[in-house]
Amino acid sequence: MEINISRLQNCLLALAKIGARPDGGISRLALTDEDKLARDLVSGWMREAGLTISIDEMGNIFARREGSSPHAPPVLMGSHLDTVVAGGKFDGALGVMGALEVVKTLNENRIVTEHPVEIVIFTNEEGARYQPAMMASGVLVGDIPLQVAYSTEDRAGKSFQAELTRIGYQGQLKCGPRPIKAYLEYHIEQGPVLESKGIAIGIVEGIVGIAWLNIEVIGEADHAGPTPMDRRKDALVSASEIISLINRIPEELGGNIVVTVGYVNVQPNVINVIPGSVNFSVDIRSFDDGKVSQAKELLRDRASKLCREKGTRVAIRELWHISPIHFSEEILQAIGKSCQELGYPTLRMISGAGHDAGCINQITSTGMIFVPSLKGKSHCKEEDSRWEDIEKGTRVLLHTVVELSGIAHS
Amino acid sequence: MEINISRLQNCLLALAKIGARPDGGISRLALTDEDKLARDLVSGWMREAGLTISIDEMGNIFARREGSSPHAPPVLMGSHLDTVVAGGKFDGALGVMGALEVVKTLNENRIVTEHPVEIVIFTNEEGARYQPAMMASGVLVGDIPLQVAYSTEDRAGKSFQAELTRIGYQGQLKCGPRPIKAYLEYHIEQGPVLESKGIAIGIVEGIVGIAWLNIEVIGEADHAGPTPMDRRKDALVSASEIISLINRIPEELGGNIVVTVGYVNVQPNVINVIPGSVNFSVDIRSFDDGKVSQAKELLRDRASKLCREKGTRVAIRELWHISPIHFSEEILQAIGKSCQELGYPTLRMISGAGHDAGCINQITSTGMIFVPSLKGKSHCKEEDSRWEDIEKGTRVLLHTVVELSGIAHS
Repeated sequence: MEINISRLQNCLLALAKIGARPDGGISRLALTDEDKLARDLVSGWMREAGLTISIDEMGNIFARREGSSPHAPPVLMGSHLDTVVAGGKFDGALGVMGALEVVKTLNENRIVTEHPVEIVIFTNEEGARYQPAMMASGVLVGDIPLQVAYSTEDRAGKSFQAELTRIGYQGQLKCGPRPIKAYLEYHIEQGPVLESKGIAIGIVEGIVGIAWLNIEVIGEADHAGPTPMDRRKDALVSASEIISLINRIPEELGGNIVVTVGYVNVQPNVINVIPGSVNFSVDIRSFDDGKVSQAKELLRDRASKLCREKGTRVAIRELWHISPIHFSEEILQAIGKSCQELGYPTLRMISGAGHDAGCINQITSTGMIFVPSLKGKSHCKEEDSRWEDIEKGTRVLLHTVVELSGIAHS
Repeated sequence: MEINISRLQNCLLALAKIGARPDGGISRLALTDEDKLARDLVSGWMREAGLTISIDEMGNIFARREGSSPHAPPVLMGSHLDTVVAGGKFDGALGVMGALEVVKTLNENRIVTEHPVEIVIFTNEEGARYQPAMMASGVLVGDIPLQVAYSTEDRAGKSFQAELTRIGYQGQLKCGPRPIKAYLEYHIEQGPVLESKGIAIGIVEGIVGIAWLNIEVIGEADHAGPTPMDRRKDALVSASEIISLINRIPEELGGNIVVTVGYVNVQPNVINVIPGSVNFSVDIRSFDDGKVSQAKELLRDRASKLCREKGTRVAIRELWHISPIHFSEEILQAIGKSCQELGYPTLRMISGAGHDAGCINQITSTGMIFVPSLKGKSHCKEEDSRWEDIEKGTRVLLHTVVELSGIAHS
């Protein structure tokens, strides 16, 4: 039983054309026209592979291959098709297309599994357009009320529900827990560890805890010429110093934590006007939840002190905080067994990025398989992985799905 | 002979409705629909006041009141109608409407001046949409070639000429030097000095030199989660430290210089992506041109050093540099004489903001009259001045225009 890497490659490259930008990046934000086109394309391929598609209220797509025990809970595998602005072709897409390649391989080999096998495409994993990230798996496990997700608006004021309806993917199926035997998410590492160690397969033990904050610094807009330096309340000067402080927090806390300011909005953002306000994001991640809390405290204290000294004001809002996640040891061992059968060295590791697997872990035994990202690049046009590593990862997924779903006959 | 302050007030408030925003600021950027509406309104008032309107190739509007010597060069007064994003109701508008109030007063008193009196509305003084600022007075005095101005594009890629034509203000008159007896620009101070000293009239000796730079910091976009802190090339961290350095330059150079970062653009500007590039502006101003050059040098050295250390790259482009301007002593004395006649204490001062008067000073004797800005606020919705000060300033303008143009008979 062998997967077909060139078939998988062709599908991934065809999918990568949807949302492709002249600069080489891909923008396929959740619930945009590009997201719809990607869903249409992949759903078509799923139907061709004989799968039965259901769509839930959050637009999550489930594609089912029946097993010999129709009432047995399915083994679920998948990921997402949405990207960040100017992202890459593997983040999310690999987990969905790898799963579809596994199904095609089962079909070709006329394998009947005992448990049904399902592929899932989760809506809005990235959170680049609608916050928080992993919104639809969050609703599925009950972390986020459906109506809260529906009423979320993007920067242009368009609601999640309106956009979901607009692209035709608001389904009838209730978005909630149901019996699932196991969930497997196959993904690129998005960091430099596997490549630097020369190991093709990462077995993911868990996911870092993540906090997202919004910081607003309020100063006073003034004309850049006639306002003496000592009378200014320049929101950008305060914000810049806070960003520098934030960047030093990981070293101060002794590592094992990363902190990033990715989004900045300066008002009025004109060359000859002293900025009146600056709004920016903070992303804090650690497998040690205590460190995330410490970082938040440090940040609050320092930002308040700095703004007091500068005569500006600061307001810090917590948008989101999820604790670190520990995956199922049983699933990790099943993945390890597949790797052993295939003769692949593995590395046990922690994911620095959030994944829908983190939510789904609440309702079923979950595990993740990583393959190396070249130079650790992700969420950018340079995101890349070797096809030979993708071939290995997809084989591991196939073996693990077969292990977990059980072969009835072939 | 007395000006009518409530008439002037009504005109200024009517004009302030064009481009008014819900937040109280005014956005009337050059060559937008709002700019056109303001031009139409004020041109109508000018025609009602019996003035003859000519429009030049750059959209500068000249409104002429004949004198007894038709071939004598005119005394010119005016300012501009464009604003920054979310600016105030007096910056520019006061100089135009104050001049029109002076003409109405001359009309009511049946004054015939020897020299013609003209009001000018300069196009794109602010430079908020098309850089550089003071573009049309720059073309008029030959600093900027007409075709360079025409081909300038805004952030959306719309050319100056296309937009000038679109709003119907590309005139036939050549935009170039011609004999002008004197130019007077009446303006709010836009700084806190006059108010803090309790003096209603500032006699402006000159304008600071101004340099505008664009700084681009290039790092590497990466996923905010799995990228270890020590492998990052975060463009925003470098940019923030440069902004902090820039803010300390004035103190280091011993004052008499102001430096501002007003515009920042982060790419890709997403919460969970390490910024790959940051583009920002720097505005440097001093009446001592040597300090402007020193500040630029310091900035280049420090930014390059910092980015070398951080593994990022920096590119600095100079967008614009004008030297300090010294106005005509003869005009300043004429303004001083008017203030003496009216019994108003005055302050000789330097303008921290650029004005079209700075350009026009190259081709004729020029001076400026300032009135206090409350709390020194300008280029923001809080921009305000007392009507009693505006009344005084407009009287000074009237007396000075009469002094310079000479009364033929009344």
